[in-house]
Amino acid sequence: MRFPEILILFREFHFVDIVLYIGIFVFAITGALKARAHQMDIFGAGVLAFATAYGGGTLRDLLIGIKINWMNDQLALGLVISAVIIVFLLRRNKAEFNRSLFFTDAIGLGMFTIAGIERSLANGVNEIYAVLMGVMSATFGGLLADIISNHVPALLKKGELYATVCLIGGTVYILLARLQLNDDLNMLICVILVVLLRIISKWKRIFLPEI
Amino acid sequence: MRFPEILILFREFHFVDIVLYIGIFVFAITGALKARAHQMDIFGAGVLAFATAYGGGTLRDLLIGIKINWMNDQLALGLVISAVIIVFLLRRNKAEFNRSLFFTDAIGLGMFTIAGIERSLANGVNEIYAVLMGVMSATFGGLLADIISNHVPALLKKGELYATVCLIGGTVYILLARLQLNDDLNMLICVILVVLLRIISKWKRIFLPEI
Amino acid sequence: MRFPEILILFREFHFVDIVLYIGIFVFAITGALKARAHQMDIFGAGVLAFATAYGGGTLRDLLIGIKINWMNDQLALGLVISAVIIVFLLRRNKAEFNRSLFFTDAIGLGMFTIAGIERSLANGVNEIYAVLMGVMSATFGGLLADIISNHVPALLKKGELYATVCLIGGTVYILLARLQLNDDLNMLICVILVVLLRIISKWKRIFLPEI
Repeated sequence: MRFPEILILFREFHFVDIVLYIGIFVFAITGALKARAHQMDIFGAGVLAFATAYGGGTLRDLLIGIKINWMNDQLALGLVISAVIIVFLLRRNKAEFNRSLFFTDAIGLGMFTIAGIERSLANGVNEIYAVLMGVMSATFGGLLADIISNHVPALLKKGELYATVCLIGGTVYILLARLQLNDDLNMLICVILVVLLRIISKWKRIFLPEI
Repeated sequence: MRFPEILILFREFHFVDIVLYIGIFVFAITGALKARAHQMDIFGAGVLAFATAYGGGTLRDLLIGIKINWMNDQLALGLVISAVIIVFLLRRNKAEFNRSLFFTDAIGLGMFTIAGIERSLANGVNEIYAVLMGVMSATFGGLLADIISNHVPALLKKGELYATVCLIGGTVYILLARLQLNDDLNMLICVILVVLLRIISKWKRIFLPEI
Repeated sequence: MRFPEILILFREFHFVDIVLYIGIFVFAITGALKARAHQMDIFGAGVLAFATAYGGGTLRDLLIGIKINWMNDQLALGLVISAVIIVFLLRRNKAEFNRSLFFTDAIGLGMFTIAGIERSLANGVNEIYAVLMGVMSATFGGLLADIISNHVPALLKKGELYATVCLIGGTVYILLARLQLNDDLNMLICVILVVLLRIISKWKRIFLPEI
């Protein structure tokens, strides 16, 4: 009966992890692109790429009081450095490039929210705060990169639904988890929900009300 | 002899805690009001409200190396959300509203300083650093909200005495504590001192010298 | 045989510690000088001085998950307060003053990088991340002060080599450490290397490429 085990390994290592690492890579590219706005050099791009990719999860882990997850992880560093190199080499078609990042970013958003929720629940955080920590994991990296590069964070300004979409996806994930269904199915449903809500929000121009 | 015990319960839960929670609520309102300056949406207001109310204490707890105090606290979340709703609904009379916040803010300032000192002393911080941690608890939430919303922090600029007042109140509290008097009386004296110093500073335009 | 022991004490306390404390003092002065740009008061100068001097090491310790190193250290506080007083009194000749800080800053940069590497290696960080933590120790204090005072961090912008020089010095230190030579000699070589690279970078206008 080794076949199913191999399948499980395949699924665990490939499906969830690869999607998460793709999400991190896309976040790192978004961060490196931000560095262009202020005549930063490639070191600055690396700092913004790392902050965007790992800032949200780092803040979550510090607040929960657990070990941060990227220390000693060479793959994390490799992804960030690759993102900086790609942004450095691909100097044109920024708008087109951004458009192609939209879907991958939305998938990463859903994955990070759920991964953040799972990590929080596993470390004594209750369901309501776990959803908040999930949203933070997914969105505060970009917030941090905006703060570092001296912008009012796009995340907090009136515009496309972004954190709200994570909040909805995360809440649905918690509710589905209570039904004791298949975990992978729950994740799949929530990631699809997040991607759909992102598309609808962009397409129909749905905003949160201004304060 | 149950009567005195009930009184103690009443005092412990009602006097100190209620004043602290009122302080948190006022800080959250101040944070939500800041979100208006940059066309932020209600999510942005929530982030700034939370940062203002809990940012100082969170930074203190991270630096001391202890569990942060708001995780899993539904009341904390309720206060922040209520503050955002109130700011959202009360759209006018900002100046008048701010004026009425002055006293509550000053009382909160005194209470947070002392609560921060007590929490620091209880976790191995010496008296001098405990006063600094108390000042940080009371003032760095607003500093953090200013950083997030891309302002030079008002706390650091020449203007009304704010951190200085906490520093004086906190130092007096440490000195009174050495006299082994009644703890509640010490707290009361220091909060009154902080409120008076805030009024005098605003009234007489007393500033720290510019660097 | 007490003589050699005394020499060791002398070396350990005087050579390394005094240079580190001079480095901290110079960093604090740089931070206090930044406070002038925004009409900050002496409290604001103190916050920026402390952030510049201890911000990088604090961030490193939080990320590694160990106790921060300045809590309860009166000397740390004394150095920061002295730096603020000196900046407050010496109101002129800023350019000349800055020039004289260049060498001390470069020496501090090398020392902080190596001290950060040693502290990271001693706490389970691998060699690659230890170099990154060393660079962070040496450079993120200034980054933090720039963020607090609402500037795009100079560290991330195209300009003189600064973090890069720490990265090179730190990498050489790790390679020398593998050779099992004398630790003090390794440190001396790396600090001299950092200072030389800083001078060459300033003199020959060597930059990292813009992203």
